[in-house]
Amino acid sequence: MKQNVETFLGCESGYADAKIVLFGAPFDSTTSFRPGARFGASAMRHESFGLETYSPYQDKDLCEMSVFDCGDLELCFGSPEAALADIEKKAAEILGDGKMPFLLGGEHLVTLGAVRAAAERYPGLHIIHFDAHADLREDYLGARLSHACVMKRCWDLLGDGRIHQFCIRSGEKEEFAFAKEHTDMHRFGFEGLSQLTERMREERTPVYFTVDLDCLDPSAFPGTGTPEAGGVNFQSLLEAILLVGKTNIVGADVNELAPMLDASGASTAVACKVLREMLLAVYGE
Amino acid sequence: MKQNVETFLGCESGYADAKIVLFGAPFDSTTSFRPGARFGASAMRHESFGLETYSPYQDKDLCEMSVFDCGDLELCFGSPEAALADIEKKAAEILGDGKMPFLLGGEHLVTLGAVRAAAERYPGLHIIHFDAHADLREDYLGARLSHACVMKRCWDLLGDGRIHQFCIRSGEKEEFAFAKEHTDMHRFGFEGLSQLTERMREERTPVYFTVDLDCLDPSAFPGTGTPEAGGVNFQSLLEAILLVGKTNIVGADVNELAPMLDASGASTAVACKVLREMLLAVYGE
Amino acid sequence: MKQNVETFLGCESGYADAKIVLFGAPFDSTTSFRPGARFGASAMRHESFGLETYSPYQDKDLCEMSVFDCGDLELCFGSPEAALADIEKKAAEILGDGKMPFLLGGEHLVTLGAVRAAAERYPGLHIIHFDAHADLREDYLGARLSHACVMKRCWDLLGDGRIHQFCIRSGEKEEFAFAKEHTDMHRFGFEGLSQLTERMREERTPVYFTVDLDCLDPSAFPGTGTPEAGGVNFQSLLEAILLVGKTNIVGADVNELAPMLDASGASTAVACKVLREMLLAVYGE
Amino acid sequence: MKQNVETFLGCESGYADAKIVLFGAPFDSTTSFRPGARFGASAMRHESFGLETYSPYQDKDLCEMSVFDCGDLELCFGSPEAALADIEKKAAEILGDGKMPFLLGGEHLVTLGAVRAAAERYPGLHIIHFDAHADLREDYLGARLSHACVMKRCWDLLGDGRIHQFCIRSGEKEEFAFAKEHTDMHRFGFEGLSQLTERMREERTPVYFTVDLDCLDPSAFPGTGTPEAGGVNFQSLLEAILLVGKTNIVGADVNELAPMLDASGASTAVACKVLREMLLAVYGE
Amino acid sequence: MKQNVETFLGCESGYADAKIVLFGAPFDSTTSFRPGARFGASAMRHESFGLETYSPYQDKDLCEMSVFDCGDLELCFGSPEAALADIEKKAAEILGDGKMPFLLGGEHLVTLGAVRAAAERYPGLHIIHFDAHADLREDYLGARLSHACVMKRCWDLLGDGRIHQFCIRSGEKEEFAFAKEHTDMHRFGFEGLSQLTERMREERTPVYFTVDLDCLDPSAFPGTGTPEAGGVNFQSLLEAILLVGKTNIVGADVNELAPMLDASGASTAVACKVLREMLLAVYGE
Amino acid sequence: MKQNVETFLGCESGYADAKIVLFGAPFDSTTSFRPGARFGASAMRHESFGLETYSPYQDKDLCEMSVFDCGDLELCFGSPEAALADIEKKAAEILGDGKMPFLLGGEHLVTLGAVRAAAERYPGLHIIHFDAHADLREDYLGARLSHACVMKRCWDLLGDGRIHQFCIRSGEKEEFAFAKEHTDMHRFGFEGLSQLTERMREERTPVYFTVDLDCLDPSAFPGTGTPEAGGVNFQSLLEAILLVGKTNIVGADVNELAPMLDASGASTAVACKVLREMLLAVYGE
Repeated sequence: MKQNVETFLGCESGYADAKIVLFGAPFDSTTSFRPGARFGASAMRHESFGLETYSPYQDKDLCEMSVFDCGDLELCFGSPEAALADIEKKAAEILGDGKMPFLLGGEHLVTLGAVRAAAERYPGLHIIHFDAHADLREDYLGARLSHACVMKRCWDLLGDGRIHQFCIRSGEKEEFAFAKEHTDMHRFGFEGLSQLTERMREERTPVYFTVDLDCLDPSAFPGTGTPEAGGVNFQSLLEAILLVGKTNIVGADVNELAPMLDASGASTAVACKVLREMLLAVYGE
Repeated sequence: MKQNVETFLGCESGYADAKIVLFGAPFDSTTSFRPGARFGASAMRHESFGLETYSPYQDKDLCEMSVFDCGDLELCFGSPEAALADIEKKAAEILGDGKMPFLLGGEHLVTLGAVRAAAERYPGLHIIHFDAHADLREDYLGARLSHACVMKRCWDLLGDGRIHQFCIRSGEKEEFAFAKEHTDMHRFGFEGLSQLTERMREERTPVYFTVDLDCLDPSAFPGTGTPEAGGVNFQSLLEAILLVGKTNIVGADVNELAPMLDASGASTAVACKVLREMLLAVYGE
Repeated sequence: MKQNVETFLGCESGYADAKIVLFGAPFDSTTSFRPGARFGASAMRHESFGLETYSPYQDKDLCEMSVFDCGDLELCFGSPEAALADIEKKAAEILGDGKMPFLLGGEHLVTLGAVRAAAERYPGLHIIHFDAHADLREDYLGARLSHACVMKRCWDLLGDGRIHQFCIRSGEKEEFAFAKEHTDMHRFGFEGLSQLTERMREERTPVYFTVDLDCLDPSAFPGTGTPEAGGVNFQSLLEAILLVGKTNIVGADVNELAPMLDASGASTAVACKVLREMLLAVYGE
Repeated sequence: MKQNVETFLGCESGYADAKIVLFGAPFDSTTSFRPGARFGASAMRHESFGLETYSPYQDKDLCEMSVFDCGDLELCFGSPEAALADIEKKAAEILGDGKMPFLLGGEHLVTLGAVRAAAERYPGLHIIHFDAHADLREDYLGARLSHACVMKRCWDLLGDGRIHQFCIRSGEKEEFAFAKEHTDMHRFGFEGLSQLTERMREERTPVYFTVDLDCLDPSAFPGTGTPEAGGVNFQSLLEAILLVGKTNIVGADVNELAPMLDASGASTAVACKVLREMLLAVYGE
Repeated sequence: MKQNVETFLGCESGYADAKIVLFGAPFDSTTSFRPGARFGASAMRHESFGLETYSPYQDKDLCEMSVFDCGDLELCFGSPEAALADIEKKAAEILGDGKMPFLLGGEHLVTLGAVRAAAERYPGLHIIHFDAHADLREDYLGARLSHACVMKRCWDLLGDGRIHQFCIRSGEKEEFAFAKEHTDMHRFGFEGLSQLTERMREERTPVYFTVDLDCLDPSAFPGTGTPEAGGVNFQSLLEAILLVGKTNIVGADVNELAPMLDASGASTAVACKVLREMLLAVYGE
Repeated sequence: MKQNVETFLGCESGYADAKIVLFGAPFDSTTSFRPGARFGASAMRHESFGLETYSPYQDKDLCEMSVFDCGDLELCFGSPEAALADIEKKAAEILGDGKMPFLLGGEHLVTLGAVRAAAERYPGLHIIHFDAHADLREDYLGARLSHACVMKRCWDLLGDGRIHQFCIRSGEKEEFAFAKEHTDMHRFGFEGLSQLTERMREERTPVYFTVDLDCLDPSAFPGTGTPEAGGVNFQSLLEAILLVGKTNIVGADVNELAPMLDASGASTAVACKVLREMLLAVYGE
């Protein structure tokens, strides 16, 4: 008899064979508005069995891929620095074994841990960032390690022109001004993405791909801490993921599902499908 | 004094005069993921009073149609075969009286009961099927009478080229392969529908029209057991219904509303409006 | 120490300096289907802190505007006439001080109070009305002061050709017939709006702008008493608001958010963003 | 074929044979806090099928009683006076036919309509009132016809010593002072009830029995507009109902279930059981 | 690296060492009213991490016990007979290995599978049954394998005087009459339980212990398909469990948690605590 | 015109005159299970208008007391130490002005800030602590500033025999062992409270009174992060509050309401009533 095992749908490879390693970061201590993203990773695993492993969009099947799901990290609530250190360590270990870390948030701050590890290994790292919010504040109510600052902290590491932001439709005036000077921000949608990914593909740029699910419109994805009207629909996001999947992805994450906020379960179902399509798209040949 | 009576909005004709007969099949015992569709028919009746009888889309009014609502069948939970037999019997009775049976599910398996009756009466029957899921499995966890197999069971009855599927975006690899050989599957949307209905209209093909409401995107319709991102919006569905309404409909159903899953009531309201538009569209002159 | 104060985000001007004055009308006693709009104004204030004051759509910031929020009126439940009198009095006072009244509903009937005050002051008043429902009934179950009659009551005041209705997709046959003769009704969407606002702008027409949030599709806005499928999305509504903002607005309102009906909070978040964009758009130079 | 009919469980007698006549008053326009009681009567009917007709507490069965359920009145939202007039008329008709009116609210104000009819017919009428709230205000925000004033309005009709209040644990200081002089108020629970009902039984006092379900503790009954901690549990309420059932009941009601406020359905299930036990208790021999 | 593993709190023994074996039966196809018990076992595991392993009531700790959790069976929805056969087989295997099967429902019908296995092995088996409902119907809408008939089916196996029922407060008149002749029914509460368990203890009677969580009052446990007012509170249930724990338990189950029906999570938390206390109580020395 | 002001019901004194000062601490970053207590203070204010100012239990009226509500602190999410420093500073300021600080949580950790200030001013301080959980862990997943450790941190300040715990029914084995040596723990209920408060009253012991609302049973109070069955009911808690109110209270708090977890609103209503009774009880003559 085997013990009860819960992984994301179809991610049943052993670690040694795996090309991608999923791990969860159930952390939302800096969420300023409505918490609950801590339950996102676990909900995606739990509800993934409502999905099929096969994607008719990509004509690929998760069953034919080698993905290992090592479950959730046990993170210290109330200490962002300790949580980020644990995430960075895990991501570094996976990268060190020649595999791709794929992080399931949690709030968006968790991305910083994985980006630190990826930037250490790939000094030329770029970030492709889908989000409703610019996340470029210097601090938030005094805290520099906050979900509202995560891209600013990534910029601290990577510098100008390395962060490519899409779907952004919310932020302070100063964040938009900062973006004009220092990041490659595309407001409201995905305009410019195909040119960018084409260029990255040619240059074999190492890319970290981070998806804050609130880039979706609240109609498609109400189950998130800070829903922001005016977002993209699922089909647009899917097309964008397929474009990004053609670049040289070295790490990825999906975050900000707060499953309890959408009792219908539709947001969790959407998140599962986004994750399936991301896994299939970034897996490579 | 009259006793309390609850029918779908404006469906207050007597049986003798009725051209369409509504009946509910509150059954969801084979639902594999999230049950609740058993409450769909009752919720549609109950909430229909938030709607108007008049459709500005079709410039028609339910008050001017003769529709009889005979309420819900009392079905045996836990026995799909018994439930299907009861549904088939009721549908056959309505067809025998020269009226159109219009079934309110319930899970999608209930369609099989009505299709059996319709195929008996109209040997040349075709099915127009709107759904997110292919429903073409041979069996599901050992059960051949399951919502995930309903179109396969219909194919057992009707054979190749008689099932026309639209909006399909989920299924196992094998289901899509089967569809290529045996059904007329249109993935993701309604492409090809107008040509099909045009041809059917000319040939006076007898059509059974089945709508699984999860063909809609979860943004428009979260209140269903297995929401599947990437669906159509209400306007597209409405246009498709108007196209199908021009064919020779001999039976119809709408199913998979699970009202408790969407506490906002919006899914039920959408289902009511879809049902009103379907009734007006298939009523004929 | 100051006492606890809750205003809509960024609306912290004093009364004397204010150009716009927000006030809430927590009234829903005539709501025939699902009540709860009484909590709309309060929820918008309370949840507005999830938004930014800055709009990237208009490149304007609420912090740079002078808006005063005087909180909710204390209205008598169960007496529509008394409630309307109180609303009219408050709106008249604000107009008398040379400021723009901006009413937060509440059910749509509250609009009538503000329109009475505005029509008194601006005899040439026109109304721009975004709504799913025609609201043109003569009476509803015997009541002439009902949300379902509010535009008919406005027409009683203003007469033919002064009410411009958009997004209308629900009503009795008689309401659509009435509209053909007496109002300027645009069904389903915003077709014709840019021509209308262009003309109004040239003629400096005084405009009262009323937005029933159920003009939005239920996918974008389920949290309302009578969700009606087939509505516009947020982007379309935003563009329409920007068009209307170029006319000579003398009063405005936004209504029919019933926050408890959408436990995800997404509807409230959408309403807050609509309100921010309306405030920025109608503020003028 | 019969049309779809929904009555409260087991209440399927014809009108002529009935000893008790159920009718619903879906009205909550004066509710000052959280509306929704308008859906109470309909929810009780709809969910009653989760109950049995047999009571092991009383060893009686609803199937052996003659109760007619004539459905819900169609009341004018927004006009308390009109609604009360309709309720009074219906109750008077039932009383005139020698039957007992049993009203399903709705907010508590609806009781006044039935009490008016009963007091007209039985000049010596007393009221037994179970409630968390005294409901003895002279007016509420200016309205004299408000749920918060209903017992004061009954007192206007009946005068001192005719209203017997139990479970009261909320009210303004003035209401408690008024009660000391004019009503027979028993705070917090049912102390004194057995003596009262014994005396009434001997004197054959005609009794109107009104149960505001918020007399129950919020743990047992959260689904109500104004839950008030410190109430009785179901067993205590049941015993009290059995005591009252031994008096000469000429009319009764149960009110203030707001089913949407308790999504678990437990409040509705409790209300159904209270109603079953009340019907069995007041039915007499 | 280990794969993600989810067991009930503290149940991390290997199979070989285990004295108790937990297994889930996610089945609710015969539920006649509100389904959802299929999610009960999984929710208990998932939410058990909000509990401690230590019980101050029993001064025992789950960490010091050897319990193996083998996860959920994969059961065929829509076929009660097939599901029962799978459950019986699993229970028989566990019993055959000299361990105690502990079943997590699911609807109450699942008990029949485990009772069949236990009665096969222990011909003198008695059942202690806590439930709101008698479950003694001969059939339900034609089905003999229904949750409403489960104790009748157990009686078919065991015969008179072997089923000891407590807390029963709902059923048809016939069920109560049947119980008088054939079972040992204690209505409403636990009266008589201490005498019974004392006697069983002396006689070393082999006992199957089945707890339908709806024996609890809906105030304590709203998250169940058919909440029935008038139940016991948690403390009473706990004391009863401790009494039963002193008998010779050979199999046990806990069922009818429908977690989605109580969005507050309190019902699931209560179920977890009941399960912890049952495990500690039946574990023996 | 005055701006919109939201205080807790009846707490409308100015600061200078106030004897008690309410302030909110919307913090829940260390909550390990289900967050949401950050919304507690705000929800209590917002929903308090469903209550009366008058208590029939104490025959006192909040309108006759002088209580100032200074709203919520703006705390840094993600930094427990910074949050505690802000709370301590505010409490010290209030104490320095000769007033009683009354803190509205937030998670239970916030108590530590106020206790630090009170212990500084009153070196002989004792704590009376009502809670389901012992909160005596040395650290939780590495964090020493966690809600699960708050009483241990208070003990670090105050030492043995100064913390009096009631209703405790959950904790690790080690916490109960620690309590035996170092605190005055009363498990499950309020046994021993009247003797304790009698003695404290005689000795004029300065008391800090902290109420974690999860001391209540989940039936009475499901809206909290970690509901724990087996708690006290409202009446017991009320009696206990009245006893404590007779001691020399120098500071108090009420915490752990997570309003979104109980959508019925009943938990918030209970919390409001507990707060009203606490204010009236601790106010003194």
